[in-house]
Amino acid sequence: MKKYKNGEIWRFEKEEDPGTGTGSSVILGLDGGTTSTICVCMPLLPSSVPYHHLPDSLPVLARAVAGCSNHNSVGEPAARDTLEQVIAEALSKSGFSRSAVRAICLGVSGVNSPTDQERILTWLRDIFPFHVKLYVQNDAVAALASGTMGKLHGCVLISGTGCISYGFAEDGREARAAGVGPVLGDWGSGYGIAAQALTAVVKAHDGRGPQTMLTNSILHTLGLSSPDELIGWTYVDPSWARIAALVPEVVSCAEAGDQIANKILVDAVRELALSVKAVVQRLQLCGEDGNGSFPIVMVGGVLEANKSWDIGKEVINCILEEYPGACPVRPKVEPAVGAALLAWNFLMKEQGGNCHS
Amino acid sequence: MKKYKNGEIWRFEKEEDPGTGTGSSVILGLDGGTTSTICVCMPLLPSSVPYHHLPDSLPVLARAVAGCSNHNSVGEPAARDTLEQVIAEALSKSGFSRSAVRAICLGVSGVNSPTDQERILTWLRDIFPFHVKLYVQNDAVAALASGTMGKLHGCVLISGTGCISYGFAEDGREARAAGVGPVLGDWGSGYGIAAQALTAVVKAHDGRGPQTMLTNSILHTLGLSSPDELIGWTYVDPSWARIAALVPEVVSCAEAGDQIANKILVDAVRELALSVKAVVQRLQLCGEDGNGSFPIVMVGGVLEANKSWDIGKEVINCILEEYPGACPVRPKVEPAVGAALLAWNFLMKEQGGNCHS
Repeated sequence: MKKYKNGEIWRFEKEEDPGTGTGSSVILGLDGGTTSTICVCMPLLPSSVPYHHLPDSLPVLARAVAGCSNHNSVGEPAARDTLEQVIAEALSKSGFSRSAVRAICLGVSGVNSPTDQERILTWLRDIFPFHVKLYVQNDAVAALASGTMGKLHGCVLISGTGCISYGFAEDGREARAAGVGPVLGDWGSGYGIAAQALTAVVKAHDGRGPQTMLTNSILHTLGLSSPDELIGWTYVDPSWARIAALVPEVVSCAEAGDQIANKILVDAVRELALSVKAVVQRLQLCGEDGNGSFPIVMVGGVLEANKSWDIGKEVINCILEEYPGACPVRPKVEPAVGAALLAWNFLMKEQGGNCHS
Repeated sequence: MKKYKNGEIWRFEKEEDPGTGTGSSVILGLDGGTTSTICVCMPLLPSSVPYHHLPDSLPVLARAVAGCSNHNSVGEPAARDTLEQVIAEALSKSGFSRSAVRAICLGVSGVNSPTDQERILTWLRDIFPFHVKLYVQNDAVAALASGTMGKLHGCVLISGTGCISYGFAEDGREARAAGVGPVLGDWGSGYGIAAQALTAVVKAHDGRGPQTMLTNSILHTLGLSSPDELIGWTYVDPSWARIAALVPEVVSCAEAGDQIANKILVDAVRELALSVKAVVQRLQLCGEDGNGSFPIVMVGGVLEANKSWDIGKEVINCILEEYPGACPVRPKVEPAVGAALLAWNFLMKEQGGNCHS
C-alpha cells in the first residue's frame, strides 16, 4: 500500500464526483487480524430491513486489504497508519467520502482492555466527523458476528495463526479464553501446532525424541538440508504467520499415520475445546440444565474442513460431549462484514431500533 | 559501553607505555551468552606449567563485560561490534596490545554450524595480526571447559535464560541437544519455566486451568493488577531474559506447596535430564557397560543450589539413575576463563604440547 503524508490519504474526497453518494449513507466494518486487515463498505439499510432478512449475498460496496494492524505486533504508529489507510482505500473505492459514513465498527486483534479500545477510538476520532458512531472490539467479536449475522450471542472459536475463544450471553456479559499469543501458551493456534512440530523435528534429530515423518516433510517444504538449519530459520524472521504456515505438513503427516504429528493435533484439539468450554461455563451459555442451545462459530484456517484429519470437527465433537446444545456455525460472510453488521446493530440499538431480533 | 568509529577503539595501543607487557604474551577467553558477553585476559603460561596445576585462583589480568553477542538475537553488525569492543576493553585494561596476544578462544551462543564459526573467524581475522591463533566455539563448550579446566571431555548442562546440553567424547566426537531457543521448545530453560508459569496464570484466570499461587506472586513481582495485563507486558519487550527472571517466583511457589508450580519444575527437570541423556547416549560417555565415569558440568542460574527446591540436584538424581558413573561438577571459574583455558589447550596441541593431560 502507498505511503501518504499528512492527510494526503483523504485527497480523493475533494476529487470525488459531486453527484456520487449524495443523500446515501454507508457503514464500515473492519477486521484486523494477526496477518491482515480488511475493511468493507456497505450501504446503510433502514431498521425495517435488517441485513439478515436480505435474500441473497450482502451488498458490499467496496473492500480493501492491508497488513497487520495489531499494535502488539507492529507497534502503535504502524497499526494506526494501517487502519487509516485501509479505511481510506475502502471509502475511496466505494465512491463515498467520510461525511457519508454513519457508523464504523473495528474488530482488531490485540484489543484486550478498555485502554486498548480508548486508544483506537482516539485515533478514529481524529479522522471522522463527530456524527460518525465509532465502535472498537476484539477481532473475535467481529468473527462471532459474522456467524450470527450481527447478533452478539454464543461463542466463537478462532484458530488461524493465533487462537482465541470469545463469547456473549444474551444479557450482554462477555468472556474470553486464550488469545494471549505464543509466549503465554496458545497451543491450539496454527503457530502452536507448527512450533510443536518443529520441536519434534529437533528432538528427533538430537536424540531426545522418536523419529517422525515431520522431519522430511518440513525440511522439504522449507528447502533445508538438516534440522540444524531450523535454528537459523526460526530466528531470521520471527513472524508467527511464517511458522503457522507449516500446519498443512503436520496434518498430512498425521493423515499418513505419523504418531507424533497425530499427538500434536490431538493436543491442539484438546486445547481448543478447553478454551470454548471455559467460556461456555463462565457465561452459562448452556443454560441451567446444561442442554441449552447456543451457536459455536468456527473461524480460521486451522478449523477449515479441507482434510480427512479435520481439526474443527474433532473440536466440535469434544464440545458436544459436554454441551449437546452447541450448534456449530461456519460463517457465510467474512469477519469484516460481521464487523459492519455489528456497527449497524449498535447504531439501531442507540436509535431505539430492534437490533437484536 | 562507548561507541567508537573506524578502529578508534584500538587507539589505546598507540598510547600504551612502551615498557608495559614487553616480551610477555597473553591469551584471551570470551564467553558470549544470551544475556551478556565477558572477555578475560590471562598470561600465557609455558606448557610445563598448565593452569590446572596452579595452586590458587587463576591469574586473570583483566576482565570486561558487554551485552548480548548472539547474532540470532541482535543481528550481525551489533554482535560484531559487541565482540570487538569487549575484546578491546579487556586488552586495554590489561595494558597489552593485540601484538601480545598468542591465542583467543570465543565461546559464543548462536554458533551452531561451521558457517557461524567461519563468519566470526572472518571478523576476528580483520582485527588480529596473522600470528594470533583464533578459535570459535559454541558458548557451551567454554562452559564445559570451565568445569574441566580446559579438557574437552564429558557433558555440560547449561540452564540460564536458555538451555543446552553439549558433550565431547575422549576421541573428539561431539554432540549437543536442545539449545535451540524458545520457539523450538527449550522447556528446561529459565525462559521455558517462566513462560509455563505465565501460561498457568492466564489459564487460571480465563477458566482453563486450576487456581495457583503463581498468580499473586507474579502479578505482585511485575506490579500488575490483573492477569489481563500480562498480554501487554509480554509484548512490550520480547527479551527472553526479562521473562526468565521470573524463575525465582516459580521456585518459591513450588516450595510453598503449589502443585502447578511444582509440576512446571518437575517437567523442566525431566526436559533437562533428557537433553543430557541424549548427549551421553550418542557419545557413549558411560562406556560400553553403562557404568563408565564422566564429568557433568552444571552451569547457569536455574541450576544453582540456593533453594530447597533444587532443580540442579533433581536433574543430577535423574541422570544418576541411568548413568551411575556421572560426576557432577560445579565450575570454580567462569566460562570466559574456560574459554581462555581452551585457547591455551588448543595452542599447546598445535605446538605438540600435552594439552589434554
